[in-house]
Amino acid sequence: MYRAALRKTTNLLIQNAKWEAKMLHISGMKHSKSKVWSLGKINHIALVTPNLEKSTALYRDVLGANVSGQQPLPDHGVTVVFVELGDTKIELLHPLGEKSPISSFMEKNKSGGMHHICIEVDDIESAMKDLKAQKIRLLSDKAKIGAHGKPVVFLHPKDCDGVLVELEEAGTGRS
Amino acid sequence: MYRAALRKTTNLLIQNAKWEAKMLHISGMKHSKSKVWSLGKINHIALVTPNLEKSTALYRDVLGANVSGQQPLPDHGVTVVFVELGDTKIELLHPLGEKSPISSFMEKNKSGGMHHICIEVDDIESAMKDLKAQKIRLLSDKAKIGAHGKPVVFLHPKDCDGVLVELEEAGTGRS
Repeated sequence: MYRAALRKTTNLLIQNAKWEAKMLHISGMKHSKSKVWSLGKINHIALVTPNLEKSTALYRDVLGANVSGQQPLPDHGVTVVFVELGDTKIELLHPLGEKSPISSFMEKNKSGGMHHICIEVDDIESAMKDLKAQKIRLLSDKAKIGAHGKPVVFLHPKDCDGVLVELEEAGTGRS
Repeated sequence: MYRAALRKTTNLLIQNAKWEAKMLHISGMKHSKSKVWSLGKINHIALVTPNLEKSTALYRDVLGANVSGQQPLPDHGVTVVFVELGDTKIELLHPLGEKSPISSFMEKNKSGGMHHICIEVDDIESAMKDLKAQKIRLLSDKAKIGAHGKPVVFLHPKDCDGVLVELEEAGTGRS
């Protein structure tokens, strides 16, 4: 009897440990009682840089962070380098192509600067519907597939106190 | 015998679950092999806002995040509201007093905007020494006690591709 109880308790505790780990991982997802959608963690902060090599060297060599290689994303008009810093990344962006959406930012901020923050949501369609009803202007009528292959939408900086806010629908994997 | 083994396994698994949870919590702290100090997670993103009530309402009521009350920090020349979003906070800042360090930013960015990012380090003195040796200008010769009661230093935006970067020495508690 004890042998069976031992096995059962062991299994339960393993399940519990896995569940705890999972809950910690997604602990940003606090559910608001009054909403059908909820906000999660900050996925990334996007910085625009005039020199991707120099910025990469700053975060990798001077500050000692883990960074990715350069990833050209022609569909999004940017080349990106991911800087891994715990649960929230820095994304270093540089314009790619003639119609890059960050060209005008780069012209206004020749030394570079902070471009946007991206916060995860669990249900982007519900979030968009709700935000529209609350008079927050969205920069597109429909969610688009973002640089991580997940649906994203940008909120108008004029409705977010001068800050460009991106919402990204978080999937089951790490993004 | 099984009873004792059951108790032992139970205790071990509880310990393991606690350890896993702890490791997940501090998983941002990746050690660079070549440095005596290391970079951790992004502690916060600071946004300056012309209207703290309105910005608080945006994050709390419209986006559904957990936010703190207004905390006046006269020594730092700001009133701050903390927005909890997973492991990385947003800090909403508004100038306080005549000599606020964010007054000139507020004048230049009347609608508000992104002010700085704060990254944790495990040893701020070693980080400062190392960064000085690597020709990164620091905005103060010595670390100061920041808004969380921990030692902080700011790096010159001209050496960080137009971005104001704060380093904060992470303690054992949550900051």
